Amino acid sequence: MSLNDIQDRLFRQARSHNGWHPEPVPDARLRELYELMIWGPTSVNCSPARVVFVRTPEAKARLKDALSPGNVDKAMAAPVVAILAYDTRFYEELPRLFPHNPAVKTWFEGEAKQGFAETTALRNASLQGGYFILAARLLGLDCGPMSGFDAGKLDAAFFAGSSLKSNFLCALGYGDPSKLFARSPRLAFDEACTLA
Amino acid sequence: MSLNDIQDRLFRQARSHNGWHPEPVPDARLRELYELMIWGPTSVNCSPARVVFVRTPEAKARLKDALSPGNVDKAMAAPVVAILAYDTRFYEELPRLFPHNPAVKTWFEGEAKQGFAETTALRNASLQGGYFILAARLLGLDCGPMSGFDAGKLDAAFFAGSSLKSNFLCALGYGDPSKLFARSPRLAFDEACTLA
Repeated sequence: MSLNDIQDRLFRQARSHNGWHPEPVPDARLRELYELMIWGPTSVNCSPARVVFVRTPEAKARLKDALSPGNVDKAMAAPVVAILAYDTRFYEELPRLFPHNPAVKTWFEGEAKQGFAETTALRNASLQGGYFILAARLLGLDCGPMSGFDAGKLDAAFFAGSSLKSNFLCALGYGDPSKLFARSPRLAFDEACTLA
Repeated sequence: MSLNDIQDRLFRQARSHNGWHPEPVPDARLRELYELMIWGPTSVNCSPARVVFVRTPEAKARLKDALSPGNVDKAMAAPVVAILAYDTRFYEELPRLFPHNPAVKTWFEGEAKQGFAETTALRNASLQGGYFILAARLLGLDCGPMSGFDAGKLDAAFFAGSSLKSNFLCALGYGDPSKLFARSPRLAFDEACTLA
C-alpha cells in the first residue's frame, strides 16, 4: 500500500458512517484494535481510556435508552458500538504503568487534585479516542463516532458503582456509503495555525 | 509499505522522543501535517483545535519560561514545538463548518452552556491531538508530546486577549533513539475492555 493510499484510508477518504452493512465484526478484531491503539502516547503513560464493546441485543437495549433520538437507528444497525470511557481513578495504575517514577500517582491523589485528575483523564482518554478511531480505520473498519447521548443514563446503565465515566461512543463495522452526508469543510491552515 | 509496517510506524514501534537531531522541519511539512490531521472526525465537525508551531529562537524563548524544568532541554532542542490549543469560542465557526444544521451553534452559546462548550472543546481538541500525532508519524516525523508546563504563563505569552487556551505541547522533528526511555507497559485487553 502506498503512503498516499494510507493517508486516504485514515484521513482524506475516511468518513463518519451513519448506515451499516450487517456483516459482523469478530471479537478477535476488537482485541486487535485495542492492542494497536494502546501504544499511542498519553501523559505519564496514564492510559485512562476504558472500552465497552456493545454487540449483544441485551447490551444494545441498555444502550438504546441513553441515546439521543437521532442516534438510535444508526447505533442499533451497527454491528458494534464501542463506549469510549475513562477511569476517574486511573492514577491507581500509575506505579505499574509508569515505573520510571512511581511517585507520579501522588500528582492526582486526594480531593484537592480532583479537578486536575479529571482534566487529565478527559484529555488523555480523548487522545486515546483519536488513536482508537485511526487504528480501527487502519484495520479496515469504518467508524461512526457519536456524542449525542445522556451520559447520566448511560453511566447508570453500564458503570454504576464503578469509577468509570463515559466519554463518547463509536459505532464500528462496515459502512454503507449510500448513507453518507456530504463532506463538511475544514478550517484552512491560516485560520487554525500560526507559524511562530 | 505493508499494513504491518504502517502499524509499526504509527503505533507499535513509535516512541515519544526526548532527544532530537538538528535537522529542521520545513514549514511545508507542517502545513501538510495540518492538512492531513484536519480530516479526522469531531462532534458536529466543531474542529476546535488551533496550533502554534514554535520554531524561531524568539518564540522558543517565550515558550521556555512556561515549561516545567524537566521539559526545557528537550523542547529547546527540538526543531519545532507545536502548541496544541483550542478555541473556547469554536462554536462561532459552526454555521460554516456544519452546514447541515447551522443551528448547532446555539447548543454552545451563552453563559449557561459554558461548561458544556468547554468540555466539548477539550474532548474534541484532544481527539484532534491524537490525529495530529498519528498524522505526524505517518509523514515520517517523530513526536514528543508534553503536558508539563504552566498553562497560565503559556496562555499569557501566546494567547493574551484571545479566546484560545493551550491543551498540550508536541515536539516535532527527527528523534534520537539513544535518548529513549525503556518502553512502559500497557493495560491488557481484559483489564481495559469489556465485551458486552
